[in-house]
Amino acid sequence: MLLYVVLVESALELVPQQLWSERSVLSSAKNKGKHPSQILLDRSLHHAAMLKLKDGLRRGRPDLVHQAVLAVTGTPAYLKGEVKLYIHTYTNLVLDVLEGTRLPKSYFRFQGLMEKVLSGEEGSRLIKVKEMGFKELIDQVNADSVIGFSRKGVLMKPEEWVSKFVKENSILAIGGFPRGSFSPAVLNHLNAIISIHEMPLESHVVLSRVIYDYERFRRQT
Amino acid sequence: MLLYVVLVESALELVPQQLWSERSVLSSAKNKGKHPSQILLDRSLHHAAMLKLKDGLRRGRPDLVHQAVLAVTGTPAYLKGEVKLYIHTYTNLVLDVLEGTRLPKSYFRFQGLMEKVLSGEEGSRLIKVKEMGFKELIDQVNADSVIGFSRKGVLMKPEEWVSKFVKENSILAIGGFPRGSFSPAVLNHLNAIISIHEMPLESHVVLSRVIYDYERFRRQT
Repeated sequence: MLLYVVLVESALELVPQQLWSERSVLSSAKNKGKHPSQILLDRSLHHAAMLKLKDGLRRGRPDLVHQAVLAVTGTPAYLKGEVKLYIHTYTNLVLDVLEGTRLPKSYFRFQGLMEKVLSGEEGSRLIKVKEMGFKELIDQVNADSVIGFSRKGVLMKPEEWVSKFVKENSILAIGGFPRGSFSPAVLNHLNAIISIHEMPLESHVVLSRVIYDYERFRRQT
Repeated sequence: MLLYVVLVESALELVPQQLWSERSVLSSAKNKGKHPSQILLDRSLHHAAMLKLKDGLRRGRPDLVHQAVLAVTGTPAYLKGEVKLYIHTYTNLVLDVLEGTRLPKSYFRFQGLMEKVLSGEEGSRLIKVKEMGFKELIDQVNADSVIGFSRKGVLMKPEEWVSKFVKENSILAIGGFPRGSFSPAVLNHLNAIISIHEMPLESHVVLSRVIYDYERFRRQT
């Protein structure tokens, strides 16, 4: 029994071509001695340029993705190899993180690793990148239950959603974006949408709680 | 009823004078256009130089402190103003974070803020810095229960430690350092030392879990 945790539509991508000639982008690329195509889109650096982008408010938050990743990889369930992490991105890439891999805790190193991985420089043993939508990922892991977490879902106690929806091959899907809801391409494939709190919570908080809930309430096999 | 969460002996400090002339330190200061005394000690940049420092392995991990801080400030209890956060550092400073303050999610901005705050540039409404040991902090908040979390503590279920040890003015103390145990200056003032899991866990994981436990099991008043 493996639990699949999927960060969906994550705000993690290289700067798209549309913004390569923007001043803020050129400046951060120059600082790193890289081409604009090789650096991460980052709201804290490219805010003004990003206003021109479609869905600009949902993209370019590698910091948020980093925190969410650490919230997963620090848990006992992950450390014991009971959780597998996928990062699905806004542009429909899937980063397949080898079981048990500890991603960098330092943001600088995480950023550098992601730039390499997304540029295809480092296919790497630890992270494999594939072009893949959320639906294809569900098919690939052969999930029999896909549980999304969203403030707009049904408010449910942990023992309730775990016993009701966690099955043999379950996916827990959490948005890897700063605001808004899942897009239809994700929504249409969720078997349940659960809200764990009446307040809106950041992805890393939701992740730490639902994995803790899973550890406490899953059927012991 | 306010819960005090204290990150103790945190690996957050400006570069100490002993290392001001180290090459790695001069280089990172130069990159920022600052004096070595104004930048954070950071293992990911100053590793070799830090080998010369007393307790070098427990210091200079602002990334870890950042993650721990976010694990606190993202919780419902914190967002509702039921938790107050203090960052006590290795050098016996206490950063008093104004209730409800959201610290920067971007690591760069967190780093910049901490450099300002620790340099005394920004007394700031949001964070006040005082020279203060852990014992003085306990006295200041008038705590009637001081609960430390450590793998070396007594393994206890959440409902048990919350009902047994959380009182009117309680402190939850979590190490803000990457390895090792609390020093005697902290240990001597803990009323209980609790272990929440048989595995060693990172501070941000412990924090997210114990605050969640607190929310679930505290006496409703």
